[in-house]
Amino acid sequence: MSHFKVNEDDLFFILKNQLNYGSLCRLERYRELDEDTLDLLVKEALKFARTEIAPLQEIGEKWGVILENGQVRCAPEFRAAFRLYGENGWTAAARDPEYGGQGFPHMLRIVINDLMYGACQAFNMAPSLTHGAAHLIESFGSPELKERFIPHMFSGRWAGTMALTEPQAGSNLAALRTMAVPEGDHYRIRGSKIFISWGDHDLTENIIHLVLARIEGAPEGVKGISLFVVPKIRVNPDGTLGEPNDVLCGGVEKKLGLHASPTAQLNFGEQSGCLGYLCGEANNGLAHMFQMMNAARINTGVSGMTLASTAYLNALAYTRERIQGSDLAGRKPGFVPIIDHPDVRRMLLWMKATVDGMRSMIYTGAYWSELALELPPGEEKSHYQALVDFLTPIIKAYCSDLGFQVCETAIQCLGGYGFCREYPLEQYLRDSKIMSLYEGTNGIQSIDLLGRKMRLNGGALFQSYLSEIQDFCRKQADQPRLGSEIRALAEAVNRLEVMARTLADKMKTDPLQWASYTYPALLCFGDLTMVWRLLDLAVLAQEQIDAGRGNDFLSGKVLQATYFTGTTLPLTLARMETCLREGRDVVEIPENAF
Amino acid sequence: MSHFKVNEDDLFFILKNQLNYGSLCRLERYRELDEDTLDLLVKEALKFARTEIAPLQEIGEKWGVILENGQVRCAPEFRAAFRLYGENGWTAAARDPEYGGQGFPHMLRIVINDLMYGACQAFNMAPSLTHGAAHLIESFGSPELKERFIPHMFSGRWAGTMALTEPQAGSNLAALRTMAVPEGDHYRIRGSKIFISWGDHDLTENIIHLVLARIEGAPEGVKGISLFVVPKIRVNPDGTLGEPNDVLCGGVEKKLGLHASPTAQLNFGEQSGCLGYLCGEANNGLAHMFQMMNAARINTGVSGMTLASTAYLNALAYTRERIQGSDLAGRKPGFVPIIDHPDVRRMLLWMKATVDGMRSMIYTGAYWSELALELPPGEEKSHYQALVDFLTPIIKAYCSDLGFQVCETAIQCLGGYGFCREYPLEQYLRDSKIMSLYEGTNGIQSIDLLGRKMRLNGGALFQSYLSEIQDFCRKQADQPRLGSEIRALAEAVNRLEVMARTLADKMKTDPLQWASYTYPALLCFGDLTMVWRLLDLAVLAQEQIDAGRGNDFLSGKVLQATYFTGTTLPLTLARMETCLREGRDVVEIPENAF
Repeated sequence: MSHFKVNEDDLFFILKNQLNYGSLCRLERYRELDEDTLDLLVKEALKFARTEIAPLQEIGEKWGVILENGQVRCAPEFRAAFRLYGENGWTAAARDPEYGGQGFPHMLRIVINDLMYGACQAFNMAPSLTHGAAHLIESFGSPELKERFIPHMFSGRWAGTMALTEPQAGSNLAALRTMAVPEGDHYRIRGSKIFISWGDHDLTENIIHLVLARIEGAPEGVKGISLFVVPKIRVNPDGTLGEPNDVLCGGVEKKLGLHASPTAQLNFGEQSGCLGYLCGEANNGLAHMFQMMNAARINTGVSGMTLASTAYLNALAYTRERIQGSDLAGRKPGFVPIIDHPDVRRMLLWMKATVDGMRSMIYTGAYWSELALELPPGEEKSHYQALVDFLTPIIKAYCSDLGFQVCETAIQCLGGYGFCREYPLEQYLRDSKIMSLYEGTNGIQSIDLLGRKMRLNGGALFQSYLSEIQDFCRKQADQPRLGSEIRALAEAVNRLEVMARTLADKMKTDPLQWASYTYPALLCFGDLTMVWRLLDLAVLAQEQIDAGRGNDFLSGKVLQATYFTGTTLPLTLARMETCLREGRDVVEIPENAF
Repeated sequence: MSHFKVNEDDLFFILKNQLNYGSLCRLERYRELDEDTLDLLVKEALKFARTEIAPLQEIGEKWGVILENGQVRCAPEFRAAFRLYGENGWTAAARDPEYGGQGFPHMLRIVINDLMYGACQAFNMAPSLTHGAAHLIESFGSPELKERFIPHMFSGRWAGTMALTEPQAGSNLAALRTMAVPEGDHYRIRGSKIFISWGDHDLTENIIHLVLARIEGAPEGVKGISLFVVPKIRVNPDGTLGEPNDVLCGGVEKKLGLHASPTAQLNFGEQSGCLGYLCGEANNGLAHMFQMMNAARINTGVSGMTLASTAYLNALAYTRERIQGSDLAGRKPGFVPIIDHPDVRRMLLWMKATVDGMRSMIYTGAYWSELALELPPGEEKSHYQALVDFLTPIIKAYCSDLGFQVCETAIQCLGGYGFCREYPLEQYLRDSKIMSLYEGTNGIQSIDLLGRKMRLNGGALFQSYLSEIQDFCRKQADQPRLGSEIRALAEAVNRLEVMARTLADKMKTDPLQWASYTYPALLCFGDLTMVWRLLDLAVLAQEQIDAGRGNDFLSGKVLQATYFTGTTLPLTLARMETCLREGRDVVEIPENAF
């Protein structure tokens, strides 16, 4: 029995009522689609996630990852699922048909990942990375590279990875050392990479690594990094497989979670026999890679959110069934299900709000991303690109940290059973912990947000973000049921603006002090985005209730918003003030005092 | 190599400078001891923890727990260590010499547990439970029971457990069903217990279970529960071992953490051959058991704190060694250790303050407990007993939840390596998760604090607690360096009083609403206790600094207090207000809305 759980109504309320995602079909690229078709795709994805992917969660956890003679072996069911995933079009659902894509809106990639990661995070990383790697070739590769690699990756025949990290470099890519020496139409690659997710496995006959390396003689630092396509098995010009390409798996990590996902150390060219192909411009590899990196950051937020979502729904099911203790107010005789206990209900309502708010935040970002990609050039397109760029570090860091907290809270609902492997909760907790760490730690995200993203285009990104929330607050300030919460949000946004501008000044005058408050400041951005999205959902629900179409589902949207706003916003306001405090304790404490 | 780390100076600063624990030697019971002897004991405990216990952490994690033919087998090193632990006097260090104790102050039991749990949580539960079980017999058993069981338990020859939970009952002990049928000088016991920590193992030749059961014909509910001594192997009157006592291990849990600690299901009397001995008064077993339960709750806080402590110190060591990225302010050339990055330093300072504050809170509670036990009857004794009773649920819940958060933050300092088993951090995270769940979930603690403990003796417990903090604030309000933080604490305590009294009223008028805010309210109590303890440490440090004896260690005490106060107290104040909000969302949300 699989433990994967989704509340379909919540998903569609965001997609249809909040975002009106059917309107995307008015964009040129999607003129042959309509909303029913999009709905159908989402439902099919859910069906596939339930039937084909969810069972892998338990299978993978039991099998783990086996490294034998330098070759990683995974559960056989993973191999079949990977192929089917590609064949059924899930890998390339949102890609152009030219190389085998299905042509659906980009934002559906996020919805599909929500469902597939929720069903089995460890597995879905494989097709998701394959998609990202193939799309990188699609965006920057030569026609020949595209032709040779993309169709097999989209179809589920080959897999792909992103290979950035090196042992001595970690998050500091400026220090990377992998070398590329030109040789005819290709390069000889030599170097070691670590932490390569799905870096080796036997799901596919070939693995296409997208590798960052320095061309011999390139400048030092990040401006000397290029992007290469490096297959595990060489590919002949006619597309058939050739010799092994001297890419060896030096080991796999033993990890807290994601036991079914091989995290590999890869040695390229130890025998000088590793050929790579330049993808995009020489020395511009980092910029190219950021296409995949940004997508990976958003996917990390998706993972944090969706693991939290299924954890919450599993906890909910448990609290409905578990009978223990008497009702505090004597509403029912005898012992009652623990969902009747207010402290359990408190945890459930917080989880419900947090999950729905994160999902709305992420889908909204995906919708903006769609418009940024598909609108004709102009102010509107730039506005949406600005929003996406600004929201990316918030989605990555906030949803990974809050997602983990939801998993922890879900465990708490089960009491001692939450600690037991017999229940799925402890695995969600373990699996979700990586999200705050990889694709740039959450500390790095906070520096990206409060540093680069705040400054970019003279602050235009932040302005776009502010205007979206302020417009909502202005329009809905007099909403009879939710007006006071909305006005509280408006005030908080004003404080946020003050905080952001003060921090922006501090970045110049006292960068160390500034950097010791970027992470709590990011949390404030996350909280306000959540409150905004939840109140937006609540307004839509309240409109239906006021029109006489009320039901429990809609009441839930209103109450999760008032609860989250009422219990979170006061803490957010307090945290914003702490980000402006003068005390320089973090900077001043002597190292020996720790 | 063991990963156990302790900052000895921090421990002694609390024990000697803050609590002046040497003054305990003026109590009648300790008149033959002096401070040097206490210091020596702590140092010996640390040495024993380092050399004998710490290596068990890795050994135990590898070995796990093996259940074969109804018998649990543990790592052989655990057996040797358990015996040595008893023989060297650690099990009964704080017990009277009558049955083999060493006669040290009760509070040193907490200090010893701090060190031993920190070295290996999974192992130290065994002697700690043995101590608790033996002490229960010591407090309530007949002279014959004491004579027969306690000396072997204190000496490390036999182990002990507490057996409360049953599958259908969980936290609701009123529902427990295990039966005891009188038969001469003993009872026949029949029933099943689950979640029995160290419920079966091969560390010792016998295991003495302290079991809650109902005597045939006893009243229903908690008033019909009695306490029994039930050995795994029968003990002849002459002290030699007899036949097996029909106590069978039905299974062990597979868990998120504490892999080396067997969590057993026990079946008593399946073949009608299980004899038990009444311990204390019939039908008063729950009250008796609460002696062990309250100690276990405090020990749970100790575990949360000490796992956090060693996790923090491991993270600290890593951040000093790991070179990555450039200094933001160009203070050093080239790449620098990540401890130089302000966001890393922010995490370190928060962890340092949280660990030191929790340790101070717990040691202070232990000191109060000492006075409550050893002072002659009178007002002062009652005051300290009130403080201990009030602080117990705060220590249990706050230190377990904050301890887990410290472990999470420690992982964050390591980036991707934090997720890898190669480093010890992920195990601390896994092991520490149980602390919020067992010995009464943290939700139950919050109801105990805001319900029972607030009401007891007409609010006298709360009054004692308030007076301790208010006295401190009054005395130190004009401290030149820390006065503003201390005045902020004083104001916060005033708000806490308002919150507590308002919630106390709400408990009567709207118990469901009340119960949906007890947990956040408990966090507020925890925060204020932390701020108080940290500021107290800081005042002591500042006095030395002002006297010209300043050093980095003392600066650290001041800066951790100003940082924690400055970044936590505003959030605590905000959280207190949320506990008073009118919104009844948690109570009103329909079950189908989840």
